[in-house]
Amino acid sequence: MTKIVIIGGVAGGASAAARARRVSETAEIIMLERGEFVSFANCGLPYHISGEIESRDALLLQTPESFKSRFNVDVRVLNEVLTIDRQAKQLTIRNLATNETYQESYDKLLLSPGASPIKPPLPGIDSHFVHSLRNIPDMDKILSTLMLHKPKHATVVGGGFIGLEMVEALRHVGLEVSLLELADQVMGPVDLEMANMLHQKLVDNDVDLRLKTGLAAITECPIQLTESDNTDDYDKPASPHFHLQLALSDNTTLATDLVILAIGVKPETSLASACGLELGKLGGIRVDDEMRTSDADIYAVGDAIETADFVTGHPTLIPLAGPANRQGRLAADNMLGANIKYRATQGTAICKLFDMAIASTGLNEKTLLKKAIPFEKIYVHTASHASYYPGAHPITLKLLFSPDNGTILGAQAAGLDGVDKRIDVLAVAQRAGMTVYDLADLELTYAPPFGSARDVVNQAGMVAANVLLGDEQICHTQDFVNLSANQIIVDIRNPGELTTAGAIDGAINMPLPQLRDRLNELPKDKELLVFCQVGLRGHVAYRMLTQHGFKVRNLTGGYKTFQMVNAHF
Amino acid sequence: MTKIVIIGGVAGGASAAARARRVSETAEIIMLERGEFVSFANCGLPYHISGEIESRDALLLQTPESFKSRFNVDVRVLNEVLTIDRQAKQLTIRNLATNETYQESYDKLLLSPGASPIKPPLPGIDSHFVHSLRNIPDMDKILSTLMLHKPKHATVVGGGFIGLEMVEALRHVGLEVSLLELADQVMGPVDLEMANMLHQKLVDNDVDLRLKTGLAAITECPIQLTESDNTDDYDKPASPHFHLQLALSDNTTLATDLVILAIGVKPETSLASACGLELGKLGGIRVDDEMRTSDADIYAVGDAIETADFVTGHPTLIPLAGPANRQGRLAADNMLGANIKYRATQGTAICKLFDMAIASTGLNEKTLLKKAIPFEKIYVHTASHASYYPGAHPITLKLLFSPDNGTILGAQAAGLDGVDKRIDVLAVAQRAGMTVYDLADLELTYAPPFGSARDVVNQAGMVAANVLLGDEQICHTQDFVNLSANQIIVDIRNPGELTTAGAIDGAINMPLPQLRDRLNELPKDKELLVFCQVGLRGHVAYRMLTQHGFKVRNLTGGYKTFQMVNAHF
Repeated sequence: MTKIVIIGGVAGGASAAARARRVSETAEIIMLERGEFVSFANCGLPYHISGEIESRDALLLQTPESFKSRFNVDVRVLNEVLTIDRQAKQLTIRNLATNETYQESYDKLLLSPGASPIKPPLPGIDSHFVHSLRNIPDMDKILSTLMLHKPKHATVVGGGFIGLEMVEALRHVGLEVSLLELADQVMGPVDLEMANMLHQKLVDNDVDLRLKTGLAAITECPIQLTESDNTDDYDKPASPHFHLQLALSDNTTLATDLVILAIGVKPETSLASACGLELGKLGGIRVDDEMRTSDADIYAVGDAIETADFVTGHPTLIPLAGPANRQGRLAADNMLGANIKYRATQGTAICKLFDMAIASTGLNEKTLLKKAIPFEKIYVHTASHASYYPGAHPITLKLLFSPDNGTILGAQAAGLDGVDKRIDVLAVAQRAGMTVYDLADLELTYAPPFGSARDVVNQAGMVAANVLLGDEQICHTQDFVNLSANQIIVDIRNPGELTTAGAIDGAINMPLPQLRDRLNELPKDKELLVFCQVGLRGHVAYRMLTQHGFKVRNLTGGYKTFQMVNAHF
Repeated sequence: MTKIVIIGGVAGGASAAARARRVSETAEIIMLERGEFVSFANCGLPYHISGEIESRDALLLQTPESFKSRFNVDVRVLNEVLTIDRQAKQLTIRNLATNETYQESYDKLLLSPGASPIKPPLPGIDSHFVHSLRNIPDMDKILSTLMLHKPKHATVVGGGFIGLEMVEALRHVGLEVSLLELADQVMGPVDLEMANMLHQKLVDNDVDLRLKTGLAAITECPIQLTESDNTDDYDKPASPHFHLQLALSDNTTLATDLVILAIGVKPETSLASACGLELGKLGGIRVDDEMRTSDADIYAVGDAIETADFVTGHPTLIPLAGPANRQGRLAADNMLGANIKYRATQGTAICKLFDMAIASTGLNEKTLLKKAIPFEKIYVHTASHASYYPGAHPITLKLLFSPDNGTILGAQAAGLDGVDKRIDVLAVAQRAGMTVYDLADLELTYAPPFGSARDVVNQAGMVAANVLLGDEQICHTQDFVNLSANQIIVDIRNPGELTTAGAIDGAINMPLPQLRDRLNELPKDKELLVFCQVGLRGHVAYRMLTQHGFKVRNLTGGYKTFQMVNAHF
């Protein structure tokens, strides 16, 4: 009879416990959770704050009792592991309810402690009006602050998944919101020009977006109640109003009532490192592909570990629910004698921001550049379903691929509809080792309400294949900067489009329908950088012009990508 | 300079013309279209009839003029090819506008004639009130009948894609609708139990569904105008009211005002067979994998041809827009000297029916049985996204796979949301040669509004992998019929569920939370057929019981699949 002890009762830990019982009816399974709740929907927390998920109970997926009755798992909430004695295979545990300390032995131990919000040591960071959001008590505290103190303005620090979801949630309940982000973009997994779509969406929703701006210090300031406060606010809280004065990295200040810290998470490794388990260079627990740590009887899963990146094979930190669940299941199998290998992580992820979604899989351009991995990129902008059927919205898709063989390196998409589907399709294709040639041939569901006979993904595959086959040479927005004397820009859109969408200084306008008849107006000794609105007509022009002896490149993604790249926030 | 002539100006033909010009600026390209329109959105026709697509012009994607100006293609509408002289490589063409006949030579010829609606030689079939829907004039005729004759009741004959879309369109504009279908189910690409979800949806939307019922004869009957007609209907049409009396295959009659014939299409092969091109056994034009017919200078694409089925490699007829477009593009390449191979067709397809979608890829169970291909099947019913986030709807997914190695043979899904995404994911996985083991490991986008940490497809993969690995033995609804004395059925749902969802006669009810404590009530010498609502808890029970020495099988898909199989319409 194997005795399995699991530290951490959410995502990975809970998956492991349930799976372990299904594998072995005889194993003794103990799940220790420092907090009050197990298996809660941590991804749902922002949506209960926004009120979209009405019932708090909906977030509590399992209880200790349901785990016991269905899986015969001994779940102990409010039990914190203090030390791991690897020699004796024994844990010292504190029951936080009784404050008693006790010992528990294990045959196999699973660490699923997760990651904790990064809390920089700034002046004032411990104010009651500064919150993180990792668990149910965090959420409860934010909700209670909203209810009791009726803040009018909130500042979210950090523009990752949780930061953006909290921005939306707080706007949803009517607060003014400032968003501080130290980097030049929100949503690190995508590249800047894609993030610019989010920046625009934030601005459109009256979010005070401050990029390249960090939080330096927080000061609590009592508010002077004014006469109008007294008359307007009949439901006045008992506690005095506070507000916060934030000092920012650009030496400005910002008055706010509430701060949400969402600048990222770091793997919870205190227990692991205290007992001498190896950590990786990125600060996560090191595991092999069977989720085993440097101690053969201790496994680790979830946000606390480093896994292999799908593209590079290098260690990476991917704090996402899907991988955590799969790792937990697999670790349970392996603790009970199997030897199942975890396959590397692509980091497929998605974020909703107001009516928009942005999603990605694989590596982004920033990372490819940093790791000096050769790549080519193309952009496609096309409708989420047949444009003649109501409700179609443009999807912007960026595809990164190997210039050698067309292997998919990464993909990013944004839009109001169908973004999840396209990145899912690309994530499967990438995992299967498909190339851009394969993408062109994918047979996807098509009826006007759902897609197009030539889907976004098919189109992206065709464009990329054209590039690889030499059927099209493309250029990028940066090629439009500092043109040489031997280059001219040719805008082949119709004149009306220049007025409505905007134009590029110095470009010659020669609409595609006239191009074939006006070839003599174009120089053959110069390189023509051709562009249209999204890149499609530019390809037609490219094919026409090259066959007539011109030197041409087509701007991938057209003017729409040009605008995304050149947007400033 | 190659002279390419294309017969047929929609989907495949139009794609080929545009691609041919992109490949070769010097080719002479002529596109002949018998009808008045090229490159129209044939998949959108039912949605203009319903009024959902408001503008008729939205369906006209290209015009002869736009083809000329962008692609320098000589488009000749209302030009019908009468004969193909393969020896002389010459066509005889009639200009339907002038009734003149002329000759045109070709170097390479592409046939893209499509398929035509099957019109059985029934008495009365030529009535003005009997319509097909293949093109813009057909649509215009239906719309004009609706407007002029104000029918109150329509009968759709045939429950395929167009039949179902027309049922919905006609209900949408307020008509009573009867649907006749000769088979025991609508939507042939899916299996009966999946189609039962459509049958239910039709009934719920007050459609008079008549399965196993064919049309035998049509009689036009003048209507006596009543007094109330005269007073109520101020906008009376000039023509007299008619109605139709339909004689049905079950010897009943049905009074209706309008018939839509949608019993299927047959490849348009008259030109091809007249000039001696080889046809396949299914009646389509035979082509090789480069889309070349038995004449090396004649290619054919689209609904008129037979392609290879992805799973079996056998010839198949797949009249779908996506494959037609890809074939057209590829044929253009090959006519201009390339040797690109078409990859076999999975037949991925989707249909919207009211608020539901149903989709499939690969082979269905009926076909696997007919072709004696070994398979196993599992069902999953789970939410389209995190169930705690608003707007989640159940998806029913049927997965067919090889019992030998887990290769994906086919998949079908139905539900209100996210059906297209799941079948797309499975279509990519199937094309990539992935197995059910791979499905379990797919890394898909997850945030509560879009999916689940363990997506429908992941779950299906896990269930199927369990079956293949012997971690679970499953049974199917038919195993519940004629139980032997050595079998008992164990319903492990909570008693409340039996009341709300329904129960199975003769099953013992022993709720899962009590199971571990009541094992002594179950016999070890009999086989226990265990079931829950959707199959998930049944798996937990299976694992528990087998490890305690019981012989067990779990009903895949649980009571929900049982109901789907046993539904009668």
